[in-house]
Amino acid sequence: MSAIPEEFADKTAQLSDQVAKPFPASRKLYVEGSRPDIRVPMREVTLTPTHTNQGIEVNPPIYIYDTSGPYSDPAARIDLLAGLPDVRTGWIEERGDSEPLEGPSSDYCLRRQADPALAHLRFEHIRSPRRAKVGANVSQMHYARMGIITPEMEYVAIRENMKLDELRSDPRYEKLLRQHAGQHFGADLPDRITPELVRSEVAAGRAIIPANINHPELEPMIIGRNFRVKINTNIGNSAVTSSIADEVEKMVWSARWGGDTLMDLSTGKNIHETREWILRNAPMPIGTVPIYQALEKVDGKAEELTWELFRDTLVEQAEQGVDYFTIHAGVLLRYIPLTAERVTGIVSRGGSIMAKWCLAHHEESFLYTHFEDICEIMKAYDVSFSLGDGLRPGSIADANDRAQFAELETLGELTKIAWEHDVQVMIEGPGHVPLHMVKENVDKELEDCFEAPFYTLGPLITDIAPAYDHITSGIGAANIGWYGTAMLCYVTPKEHLGLPDRDDVRDGIVTYKIAAHGADLAKGLPGAQVRDNAISKARFEFRWEDQFNLSLDPERAREYHDRTMPHEAHKVAHFCSMCGPHFCSMKITQDVRDYAKSHQIEDVKIAVEEGMKEKSSEFLEEGGQIYREV
Amino acid sequence: MSAIPEEFADKTAQLSDQVAKPFPASRKLYVEGSRPDIRVPMREVTLTPTHTNQGIEVNPPIYIYDTSGPYSDPAARIDLLAGLPDVRTGWIEERGDSEPLEGPSSDYCLRRQADPALAHLRFEHIRSPRRAKVGANVSQMHYARMGIITPEMEYVAIRENMKLDELRSDPRYEKLLRQHAGQHFGADLPDRITPELVRSEVAAGRAIIPANINHPELEPMIIGRNFRVKINTNIGNSAVTSSIADEVEKMVWSARWGGDTLMDLSTGKNIHETREWILRNAPMPIGTVPIYQALEKVDGKAEELTWELFRDTLVEQAEQGVDYFTIHAGVLLRYIPLTAERVTGIVSRGGSIMAKWCLAHHEESFLYTHFEDICEIMKAYDVSFSLGDGLRPGSIADANDRAQFAELETLGELTKIAWEHDVQVMIEGPGHVPLHMVKENVDKELEDCFEAPFYTLGPLITDIAPAYDHITSGIGAANIGWYGTAMLCYVTPKEHLGLPDRDDVRDGIVTYKIAAHGADLAKGLPGAQVRDNAISKARFEFRWEDQFNLSLDPERAREYHDRTMPHEAHKVAHFCSMCGPHFCSMKITQDVRDYAKSHQIEDVKIAVEEGMKEKSSEFLEEGGQIYREV
Repeated sequence: MSAIPEEFADKTAQLSDQVAKPFPASRKLYVEGSRPDIRVPMREVTLTPTHTNQGIEVNPPIYIYDTSGPYSDPAARIDLLAGLPDVRTGWIEERGDSEPLEGPSSDYCLRRQADPALAHLRFEHIRSPRRAKVGANVSQMHYARMGIITPEMEYVAIRENMKLDELRSDPRYEKLLRQHAGQHFGADLPDRITPELVRSEVAAGRAIIPANINHPELEPMIIGRNFRVKINTNIGNSAVTSSIADEVEKMVWSARWGGDTLMDLSTGKNIHETREWILRNAPMPIGTVPIYQALEKVDGKAEELTWELFRDTLVEQAEQGVDYFTIHAGVLLRYIPLTAERVTGIVSRGGSIMAKWCLAHHEESFLYTHFEDICEIMKAYDVSFSLGDGLRPGSIADANDRAQFAELETLGELTKIAWEHDVQVMIEGPGHVPLHMVKENVDKELEDCFEAPFYTLGPLITDIAPAYDHITSGIGAANIGWYGTAMLCYVTPKEHLGLPDRDDVRDGIVTYKIAAHGADLAKGLPGAQVRDNAISKARFEFRWEDQFNLSLDPERAREYHDRTMPHEAHKVAHFCSMCGPHFCSMKITQDVRDYAKSHQIEDVKIAVEEGMKEKSSEFLEEGGQIYREV
Repeated sequence: MSAIPEEFADKTAQLSDQVAKPFPASRKLYVEGSRPDIRVPMREVTLTPTHTNQGIEVNPPIYIYDTSGPYSDPAARIDLLAGLPDVRTGWIEERGDSEPLEGPSSDYCLRRQADPALAHLRFEHIRSPRRAKVGANVSQMHYARMGIITPEMEYVAIRENMKLDELRSDPRYEKLLRQHAGQHFGADLPDRITPELVRSEVAAGRAIIPANINHPELEPMIIGRNFRVKINTNIGNSAVTSSIADEVEKMVWSARWGGDTLMDLSTGKNIHETREWILRNAPMPIGTVPIYQALEKVDGKAEELTWELFRDTLVEQAEQGVDYFTIHAGVLLRYIPLTAERVTGIVSRGGSIMAKWCLAHHEESFLYTHFEDICEIMKAYDVSFSLGDGLRPGSIADANDRAQFAELETLGELTKIAWEHDVQVMIEGPGHVPLHMVKENVDKELEDCFEAPFYTLGPLITDIAPAYDHITSGIGAANIGWYGTAMLCYVTPKEHLGLPDRDDVRDGIVTYKIAAHGADLAKGLPGAQVRDNAISKARFEFRWEDQFNLSLDPERAREYHDRTMPHEAHKVAHFCSMCGPHFCSMKITQDVRDYAKSHQIEDVKIAVEEGMKEKSSEFLEEGGQIYREV
């Protein structure tokens, strides 16, 4: 009866050791909003000073967007058996438009909860679910359209802004704030993020805040192309491999390494219980593909799916607290034949399930015919739509084809319907697309779906590198993020080959953090370059520790360095293993700077003497000026 | 006295085990040219048949560009102690414009060869060097401009064309040859590669064939933006770590995994002997940065470098067989102050050495003032210029700045001078560049350097991911390749942290193969998509073995698959670990296809009945037609 709690007790101890500690040289801080219960987490990295000939130069701390939740907070007590502390219940209750139910509304959920054989799998502190009062709409979009700035909106504004106002008024950051003008397709990026901007973007449907009222543990975040590009990670068991503890552990690592949202794609055993454990311990929005579980309930026979069963599944998951649902409502009967000549047919699991159902029943899927009914459920809990691309290409040969784009147009129609219900929507995108055809996907999505946030899987830019598909897709992801995609769904090295383990999750996340950050830089997101500038300055000055601590994966950076140069002394050495002491270009550059400074007059004179008169005025003007500033 | 030969005997045995065998399901074949001594290697991958309801469908073999040299040829006898077989001496001799010397012309080389203390380090079969006869010019560009199609040119034409003509006339390849139109910036890509096209591209300076007459082991290849995008790998010891055998081993692995060229960047001990071992066993062009060795000769004191010493180093290396030299001749005195305000100053080792020299002597570097003397050496052996970007940005903050672009303009001037000597030239590029500023680098290079092939290091699109810089730079590399860069210099995970080991070389190479292939697809290189189509078809049909064998890294793909599903039976299973038997979208798609086929008429009828009349004519037209073909 107690197999799982024991397993979790072990995990808790393990994770406390490994995860529940701050990042190196970092401290968790909380920025308070307009009220004391708005406490927005950030990571502050403390840097060492620079030693120059003129003395010591202080390097100010760098602030990093923090997805790790309480797991990196030494003050938090991590207990997976109890779940995370509550962040949002106060906000939800004070709105007065929802109420706790006596118990779950889902028949399936009731049966699971009543089954004594499942007791040992069950999370021990299940709350009664909460639902909108009759006639109420609890979606963030609804509030936004009524002109209300919710605590969630203020929270994400503070979170996106990352103390940028303070940095701008602090002279220590002047050089670090220097940044290239970006290339943002569409309107200019906002110069700073305010709660009112968040509200207006959510109201316009250009951004979503996935935040189910039954997921009070959530630290709110926003998905929209005028904000930081986000990344989603996928975990989930399958019929072949399965362990609740493993999935929860992957979720925790995903938070720590930088996953902004997480999808539980479990298709194996005990999906309901697995999801409960994940939600109660997840600081980030959790998404699912409800049709997976629905199919499990009919033993994998797609044609036996019914609206009633699916509806019950939506309610079951909404009342557990799932923040967004992938719904493949755009797979229409008439689009299915468009896939028959493809190299890889229909590769979306949800898409193929619905296609099979449609053909078996000779009718449009219940996802499409009951779309407004689904909206009614979504707004009663504030579950966001992630309108699924069931006909996405599974190979570059099939990219941007009629089937894919026909479905995208239908997703646009559905977006309009969802927005009539004030239900938040994002749109899923491919998949496999060669590099030169990536931009068309964003352009078409923005037009057809009225700028609803785009959420893409990669895309992979070639099919020939299984075991490296985090990379083939990371290339596509950086590009599609630059072009305007709001969230990038990660791909791990195991894609196409097997289920990812913890190391694969790490590789996938870091790759996608690179892609997302690369996109932010390319778009010119204000403040995005501070971290690059700080780490490059540290690199140039041989502040090895700072270079490790500012990197996306401090532990691996340090580990790789130490494989060549294991001694502590090497971390303060002004050279490194690549070049050795004589060949270090950075050392030589410093010599050049010192030399140039001390020989300023002569250099200019000699330069002129050497017959470079054609350039000498330029040299005087630029060189002279630069030297004076050094 | 025999430490190294013993070490090499061990290595030979090891490498024979690991490397000197064909790739899985692959056979080395040689396509003969117009004469029997033109034998161009390719890899043929044999595929298993597809089992369909209609019987067996044969999947024709796929041909892969093969950089592995004799190492993957079971018929070859690999003996690192003896070096590789000779490919080109016949071609070189029959041109009658060069002659073997009595011995090396370099004083340094003579001293090394006469030093008994070095005997145990020395390759045992050193040939006398060969040099152009007085007044002759042995460069491929020189022949090209005289209208001569050399065996090297024919060789690379066959190698680039990859049996495409045969595939086009073979109906089995019809579907596999389907390909998206690419986006090639500049003129359209040629539809097929002929020897005459190769000649004209080399004559125009748009492509180079690095092929020193003292490197007869070389299998010729071409670098130019109208050909496949190539990748370069770097190896080399340093003062901190050093082993000749390790460097040779990395070179061999580099060949096997797909490196098109290789630079020996050794800066440690015994650079001369290390290079000899590498060259004699290298099937790919070898590049160096001669200033590194020159600096070593003056104990790291940049200001003590002289033209005479550098000249002797060029001759030493040219007579060993180095195929291209990185020469940082664009670092001019007046550009150096432009770097003083940078975040990361001068990060190119060569650039910083020359900057230091220039400032110390108050004059332009000997690389610039003796540039025509260098050209005289280059054309006597056919060494190609790789004009180095000594002022490339070392952080994204410094990207595309005045210093970088001023140097690029000077490299353009030097290109013209080299071309007056019929010396082949490529141009090195950055470095660290945010995504939206990448294209400007190519555009400016093509304009300023008259379309000489561009050869870039990445670029990294962000600075914040040490330990993942193969990925940060692979993203930039795929983009810059698409825009027109001809060769991509790989970056390994250890960049900025330490010296790469064999695993890092593997990760770096595969990442860059992805980038280069992604660029080929985006440009629309004819035939590039065949491999993608074939692997995607295999994936869709659950031909696991074929999927592994067609991938860039067959061993790792198989290994990752087997971690989740180790049994042989799983490799023929029509599902995989990600989804399990019920959830496999590919299986369901096949069901959809089968179902759709057997219910064709009804589907259409029902679709019309369901009131989708607005789309029914389209449906009939497309759906009907598609079904008939299935």
